[in-house]
This record gives sequence, structure tokens and C-alpha cells, in this order.
Amino acid sequence: MREQMATMVEAVQDEICQALEKLDGTPFHEDLWNREAGGGGRTRVIQDGQVFEKAGVNTSRVFGPMPPAIAEASRARGLVLPEGELEFYATGISLVLHPKNPMAPTFHANYRYFDIRSEAGESLWWFGGGADMTPNYLFDADAEHFHRIHRDACQRHDQDYYPRFKTWCDEYFFNAHREESRGLGGIFFDNLNDRPSEEIFAFSSDCAHSFLAATLPIYERRIEMPFNETHQRWQQLRRGRYVEFNLVYDRGTSFGLRTKGRTESILMSLPLTARWEYDHQPEEGSEEAKLLAVLKQPKSWLPEGSD
Amino acid sequence: MREQMATMVEAVQDEICQALEKLDGTPFHEDLWNREAGGGGRTRVIQDGQVFEKAGVNTSRVFGPMPPAIAEASRARGLVLPEGELEFYATGISLVLHPKNPMAPTFHANYRYFDIRSEAGESLWWFGGGADMTPNYLFDADAEHFHRIHRDACQRHDQDYYPRFKTWCDEYFFNAHREESRGLGGIFFDNLNDRPSEEIFAFSSDCAHSFLAATLPIYERRIEMPFNETHQRWQQLRRGRYVEFNLVYDRGTSFGLRTKGRTESILMSLPLTARWEYDHQPEEGSEEAKLLAVLKQPKSWLPEGSD
Repeated sequence: MREQMATMVEAVQDEICQALEKLDGTPFHEDLWNREAGGGGRTRVIQDGQVFEKAGVNTSRVFGPMPPAIAEASRARGLVLPEGELEFYATGISLVLHPKNPMAPTFHANYRYFDIRSEAGESLWWFGGGADMTPNYLFDADAEHFHRIHRDACQRHDQDYYPRFKTWCDEYFFNAHREESRGLGGIFFDNLNDRPSEEIFAFSSDCAHSFLAATLPIYERRIEMPFNETHQRWQQLRRGRYVEFNLVYDRGTSFGLRTKGRTESILMSLPLTARWEYDHQPEEGSEEAKLLAVLKQPKSWLPEGSD
Repeated sequence: MREQMATMVEAVQDEICQALEKLDGTPFHEDLWNREAGGGGRTRVIQDGQVFEKAGVNTSRVFGPMPPAIAEASRARGLVLPEGELEFYATGISLVLHPKNPMAPTFHANYRYFDIRSEAGESLWWFGGGADMTPNYLFDADAEHFHRIHRDACQRHDQDYYPRFKTWCDEYFFNAHREESRGLGGIFFDNLNDRPSEEIFAFSSDCAHSFLAATLPIYERRIEMPFNETHQRWQQLRRGRYVEFNLVYDRGTSFGLRTKGRTESILMSLPLTARWEYDHQPEEGSEEAKLLAVLKQPKSWLPEGSD
């Protein structure tokens, strides 16, 4: 599974980067890096491109003796780890796209596989992942499309996956101190190991390969839309919220920083620019207020029985 | 002490705001807020002024039943709290100044008093605080001036305070994932209760009243300096680091957000704008590289025996 997952995420990275390069007209800058204690990764970035202010698509496979901080974090999340010396292996893809046009949403996706083995031969493995969208302006059709593609991928594997993982996503990407969601959600799952790993791999792979179908049509209709300074300022404020979520709540980020991961690859998820105004409130009835209302009260984008 | 400290921090707030209004030519916007469970605060902000991109000077006095999150955080920091139902009281001033001119440093200061009382009549109190500077460009004279004023305030109360609190400040304002300090330090202390509260109050008051003397002369020589786009871009990148420290490490911020403090007052410490470039490295030998070198290796600004 280790090899199978690593091969899959690297193939998805190539597929996504190729499509984004075509969309942006800018080649990705690539950094290959090694981790001293074992493994490494492939970081790819477009910065200040034509379409993207910042787009990062990373893969990594890291392994070696289990760092105590990772063991602690895993136990804190309720995992029962074997005793004694542990070895871990983790591989995954992580990507964040911040477009320049305020009408086009930020997209994030992440699919990963993790396993732990003890000296005594005990082992534990799980998959995690998901994809979610964070627009500055509300276009119902975009949210429906993004959710539909992910729901369809889920349905091909388990009828319960989409409702479960949609709810999990709404709960996870939540800025508690703002009492608002980071965005319009998508799917999110973690510690998934309730069936043969081959089946969860097939599901993860299906989702990962669905990313372009879920996002490109949205970019195609948004990146040429006209916008003004008011839209840009709102986009900058929303990016501030994105930074807040990633630095205050995101487990992957705090885990990465605490376990001495590669900082530049971890924080690549942050936008190029962000803004914080004291006590900014959008005008009542404005497009900005409409977005906030939905962030305060996550909705169902695909009513029961819809296609 | 509760009343004495609250009166002092409000007087300091008035004194500092008056001086900053004069410097900027813009009046502070003031918000008075109440905390449902007891107490409230006075938040004052200049946003997009002449001199300041954002300047926030807050005071608060909050009290009531001890929120479990505060008790937990206090115990995690090694404090031995009385058992049973607890009442707490906290008052303090917190301020952050982000000037527009990249040659002028960001300053931060915070002085607070905290006490806890149990039903059985047991009690516990302590003071915390400090002040530190975060420049984008290195002017040795500025760092020396800021440190000297604070050292002198310390020396008036205890010969050990400055060396102890200077080191504590360097250790506290540290972005571990970047392996660099947030800025050039100053003083920092917490859980201070090793002598009569009147004496620590006098020390805190002396430091708080020294803030203007420590900072105004620096602003007076920096805010008119010429600068270009390169300086501004570097300023934005350094502000990104400031955001990282405040959201990832700062105890006051995470404590405030977790205990459902007033989000807008807590996050007022964030700059108006910030920037994250992938893997930015300043040119060797540049002014930007000189600053980084000092952030990587905190130095002594007032050699033993200097005036």
C-alpha cells in the first residue's frame, strides 16, 4: 500500500499540475527536498502567475522512527498505538489554489496514507483526506458542481460516505472564534480504516482524480469575470480568515510545524497576501453579506434525491 | 490591587493614545464592550492613519467564575490552583503599533494582573507583561534606545530583572518553525509574585509609563525616512511572520480565542496587510539579510557596564 499510494499521489500531482500550467500559462517551480530522518517530497508552486496569485501542489513520502510529537498527537486524537519503538510511514498530496480573481474560489485538497509498525510486528494504518472550496462570492452553481462531483465519487464506494464526510468537512473547517465556516465545505475524512485498505485506496484515488473535474469548470467561468477594488479588498479580508484557520486550527499545519516538517512546504498553503481590518462588517444585503450568511449556517448543496 | 491596576492601565492607555493621536494626526476609534459573564473593556484603534497602518491600544478588566479553559491553561503552565469553584479577575493593557513606513518598527506592550479566589478563601495572584520591538530594518541605535529605557525601568526595582526578562523575551517571541526571533526583543515576564504585590505593581507601572519614552524618539526619526517598493515588500513579508507568531505561539492570543474573548480586540494585534512568498530568501549582504542574521542569533544590546 505504501508504494501504491505514493505512486498514485505523484500521478495525481502530475495530472493536476499539467492542467493548471495550461490554465495559468506559467510553469510550476519545483523543489525536491529530503528529510534527514527519512524520505522527502516534491513541492511545486506557481507564484504571481496569470490566473493564480499562489498555487501549491505538494507530494511527500516520509518515514523513519516515529517522532514523539507525532505519537503524542495521534494518541490525543484517540488512536491506540502499539507500545515500544515505532516506525512510521506517511505519503500524500496536499494542494491549495489561490486565484487572483476575487470571483474565483480558493480550492484545497489533501489525500494521505499513514501507517505505524512496532518492533513486535504490530501495525496500524489509516487514510485521510478531502477537498473543500472557499469562495469570496457566492455562486450557488459552483458549490453545487463541486459538491456533486465529490458526492458522485463517494457514491461509487459507499452510500454513507458523502453525507458523513460532508458533515465532517463542515465541522472541521470552522473558525470557532469567528463562529463561521472557512468556506462552503466539500468532503473530509480521517482515520479511515474500517474496510480493506485496497478499498479505501480505491476511494481516495477516485476522489483525488476527481479534483480537476470538480474545479476546472468553475475556474473557466470565473477567472475572466470583471471585478473592482471593493471585490479585491473583500478577497483580502477573506484570505485573512483563511490564514487564521490554517495557523490556529488546521491539524496538518500545526502537526507539520511541531514535527519539524519542511516549513516552506507546509506554509505554502497561505495566500500571497492577506488583510485584517478592525471589526469589518459587510453592508446589509450586499453580496459580501450573502456569503457570510452561508458561512454562519452551512447548507446542504445537494438536496436529497437531486441528480 | 484589582482597582489600583485597572486605574493604572487606563491612565497609561489615555497617556499613550494622546501621544499617538498627536503623532498620527488621526483620532482613535473607541469601542467600549461588555463581557457577558462579567467585566468589559475599552478598545481603541487607528486604522490606515497618516503614520500608522494599524495601531491598537486596549484595556480590559474581566472577572467572574473561572472558565474551565483558563483553569486548564493555568495548570498546564505549572500553576497550582486552589480546588473547588474559583472566581477570577484579570485586568491589563495590550497594545500593538504597526507603522506604515517600513523603516519604523512595530512595537508591542502588555501589562496585566490576574488573581484567583476559591470559595474556601484561598487566593493566588500574579503579574505579567513586557514590551518588545519588531523592526523590518536594523538600526542599532533604535534597539539600544528601546532596551536602555526598559533596562533602566527594571533597574529601579531589581538588578536581576533586566537580564532575566530580556532573556525570557528572546525565548518567548520565537518562531520555532522559522528558527528565528519575531524581533529584537525587549522584556517579558509572567507569573511574577515573588514579593509584595505593591512592589510588583510599582515595577509594572514604571515599565508601562516608560513605553512612550522608549518608542516615540524612534518613531520621530524613522517615520519620515524615504522608502521604496523593495522595502515595502520586505515589510509585508515580515508582517507575515508577525501573524505566524501571534496565531501559532502567542499564549495571550490562543488563550483569548479559546476562552471566547472578544475576537476583534484580540486579533487587533494583526497587521492590516501581510504577505507570504514561497521560500523567500533575502540577497546576501543586503539590509534584509542583516536583519535576519540578528533574528537568528539574538544579541545583547547593552553590553555589561554600558550606560
